[in-house]
Amino acid sequence: MKIKNPRTGQYYYEIFPPTFEELKTKTKSMREAQEDWKESGIEHRIKALQDWKVVVEEHKEKLIDALCMDTGRKWETVLEVDLVALSIDRWSKISREFFATTERKTSSIPFLEIEQGYEPYSLVGVISPWNFPLLLSLIDTIPALLAGCAVVVKPSEITPRFIEVLQKTINQVPGLLGILNYIEGGGETGADLCKLTDIICFTGSTETGKKVYQAACNNFIPVFLELGGKDAVIVTETADIERATSAVLWGSVANAGQSCLSIERIYVHRNVYHSFLSRLVGKANLLKLAHPTMDSGQIGPIISEKQVIIIDNQLEDAFKKGAVLTAGSRKCEELNGGFYCRPTILTNVTHDMKVMTEETFGPILPVMAYTTVEEAIEFANKTQYGLSGAVFAGTEEEAMKIARKMKCEAVSINDAVLTAVMHEGEKNSFKMSGIGGTRMGPSAIKRFVKQKAYLINSQGVKDSW
Amino acid sequence: MKIKNPRTGQYYYEIFPPTFEELKTKTKSMREAQEDWKESGIEHRIKALQDWKVVVEEHKEKLIDALCMDTGRKWETVLEVDLVALSIDRWSKISREFFATTERKTSSIPFLEIEQGYEPYSLVGVISPWNFPLLLSLIDTIPALLAGCAVVVKPSEITPRFIEVLQKTINQVPGLLGILNYIEGGGETGADLCKLTDIICFTGSTETGKKVYQAACNNFIPVFLELGGKDAVIVTETADIERATSAVLWGSVANAGQSCLSIERIYVHRNVYHSFLSRLVGKANLLKLAHPTMDSGQIGPIISEKQVIIIDNQLEDAFKKGAVLTAGSRKCEELNGGFYCRPTILTNVTHDMKVMTEETFGPILPVMAYTTVEEAIEFANKTQYGLSGAVFAGTEEEAMKIARKMKCEAVSINDAVLTAVMHEGEKNSFKMSGIGGTRMGPSAIKRFVKQKAYLINSQGVKDSW
Repeated sequence: MKIKNPRTGQYYYEIFPPTFEELKTKTKSMREAQEDWKESGIEHRIKALQDWKVVVEEHKEKLIDALCMDTGRKWETVLEVDLVALSIDRWSKISREFFATTERKTSSIPFLEIEQGYEPYSLVGVISPWNFPLLLSLIDTIPALLAGCAVVVKPSEITPRFIEVLQKTINQVPGLLGILNYIEGGGETGADLCKLTDIICFTGSTETGKKVYQAACNNFIPVFLELGGKDAVIVTETADIERATSAVLWGSVANAGQSCLSIERIYVHRNVYHSFLSRLVGKANLLKLAHPTMDSGQIGPIISEKQVIIIDNQLEDAFKKGAVLTAGSRKCEELNGGFYCRPTILTNVTHDMKVMTEETFGPILPVMAYTTVEEAIEFANKTQYGLSGAVFAGTEEEAMKIARKMKCEAVSINDAVLTAVMHEGEKNSFKMSGIGGTRMGPSAIKRFVKQKAYLINSQGVKDSW
Repeated sequence: MKIKNPRTGQYYYEIFPPTFEELKTKTKSMREAQEDWKESGIEHRIKALQDWKVVVEEHKEKLIDALCMDTGRKWETVLEVDLVALSIDRWSKISREFFATTERKTSSIPFLEIEQGYEPYSLVGVISPWNFPLLLSLIDTIPALLAGCAVVVKPSEITPRFIEVLQKTINQVPGLLGILNYIEGGGETGADLCKLTDIICFTGSTETGKKVYQAACNNFIPVFLELGGKDAVIVTETADIERATSAVLWGSVANAGQSCLSIERIYVHRNVYHSFLSRLVGKANLLKLAHPTMDSGQIGPIISEKQVIIIDNQLEDAFKKGAVLTAGSRKCEELNGGFYCRPTILTNVTHDMKVMTEETFGPILPVMAYTTVEEAIEFANKTQYGLSGAVFAGTEEEAMKIARKMKCEAVSINDAVLTAVMHEGEKNSFKMSGIGGTRMGPSAIKRFVKQKAYLINSQGVKDSW
């Protein structure tokens, strides 16, 4: 399986997916290793992950190099690698607290007591996407490991180069041997994984998510899906326009818009529409493509060639239906074999355009005016997705009133894409954006264990016939 | 659709399932009614259910009559009706506490705060079985209502007579109008329901559970399945045999064994096998069939004719493979058109008999001797199911050591089927016994809401470009 470099369009790497039989052998031995891992206790597991953290830190440069070649962009990559340590620390704390709460309790019935137990699933499968290859491969993996599961991870075949580097760091931690494995492969390997694991965690497109749900159903296992989004922002007439334009731009074009939680629809009150738009255009025009070097600008290449086609198709559809190009360009640009998309602001947009209904995954900012708050909320909810959203208003009270009516799992108030940085809240995707328990907050650990109750008659013979 | 009376084998009742179009109209108006229900707040919803509790109590006799005709047995029916009030009170308390925890919190990041919100699913579908028609139709319904959902319930077509009586009690509570509806119908109506609701809760056989999972997958909605069991009890040589035999017998033959959590396999240490067996046989032989009247004995009729065939088939298979009849009878007995199964103790059983591997759902007690604790645990876990189990031992410590190794969601210690009476523990079915979050304990409420996080930048402009 040959892999392209997104900055040059050239094949530059090759991966060799395991056969089903090879995967079967590997997962079998992982299940055996998990027996000890499960019994080892939470402190042992925290120690193993802390050891890994140190090794990852030592190999930081190599990891960044591999990820940069995979994704063609730099600062998001550095962030991804830096977040590994924070994530391990955060989940260590949460899981320690979680497993501390197993003490015995009396019940409401005389002589009957209860003790809560946990049986981790033996083997968790993680299938992760190409937009944040390292970060999103770990988001479910770390809590699953701490819960006592073995984890096999299949990152996207579009950005696989970091796998070898990361697996080497894993192999240097004796405690993780046979417990955590990264494997290379495409859709077929992902399908194989669904047949060999006890839970599947999938992050990616809604289209593929449906297939993963079907595979889990066939195998009668639980599934956790985090899928597409079409996040809306609502800017009221009382909002701080300076602040709103900066945050919205950031939320739309970071990682060249290749983020499930990036802002893809902007609804602005009619009375501030023009001042908002002119400032947004001014700020957008200051941004530069990260070409010829990764440090040349803020906007890296579109990582997946398929995505270039989707973006161009949506733009073409929008212009055909009357959208006006207010900043950016009419289509992605090819530079030295890579494809780039400038921050592109569209006005005169309508809800029959693909760019207003389908996930774009690019730095496209369609801006639409609204007249009443009710209308804005209706617009924002006019989507099959329900991932996140944002509201900007003069007071928090005004913003919260709107946010409470938005049909999505998280709303940033007077800021954008805070879901990327705040991990404390529990949330569940709405509509076609996902299925399954929260992946954030303490309850996230529960996804990876079967809870078990010990019901104890501590005294006396039961009064029965 | 004609319905038989299990005590006479005669058709005695008819149900008229709604067409898909009728169901579509009904569920549409329920979704509209749910908008107010959701907004009304937890105290309003508790009040509505408390009002309903009073009305149900007033119609207790009629409800018991209908259920007795449906199921052919009495004292379990009285218990079912009595438990309605307890269940409403318990969930009122749990949900009040749950919704009280929405206060705003600071996060670990300066200026960023978080508030937890909840958006109930609009319409929950409940598909419930015939063994405890009232109780199991409410087990998910009450928490779902309190969470703010509308609920449509389709009880089994085998025991539908209580539906009309119960719906009349619902209609007398203004607060529940359009929010809770019971509908008549069989498998086809259940399939329709999966197309029209936002979550499906199913209690029933593993075979049907797989179909429900597929239907939920087709509709891309979450599913909660509580399915079959093949519960094992382990009796060690230190156990109190007097106590163990009473509890095991109770756990096996209550409701004529028609309970997912009834004991269906009995593993006894070789050294106490004979004393256990003789006492068990002695006690079993004291039990009487509830014939000619419901008060004539403890063992009611087998409710479903299909189940009679399954039980007879398992017994035939067991005898063919060498099982010895030690108490009870070789097959179900037909009495005045109804079918009854005496408490039937089998010895000389092996794990290649259906009665040791497939769910029986009848008062059959296969008893097998074991030599070591390891062997007993291996035997107990030798099943595709993982619902519950029990251990009897001289000390709790000894029992807990064994219980921790049993692969099932709940283990009773020195007692049997405590899951039927203790609702505090959180638990998740193992293996083919189910899928989805716990239906007991505070987390059960979470199944019916999408958690939503409000992420608030309370101060200052974000430091971005």
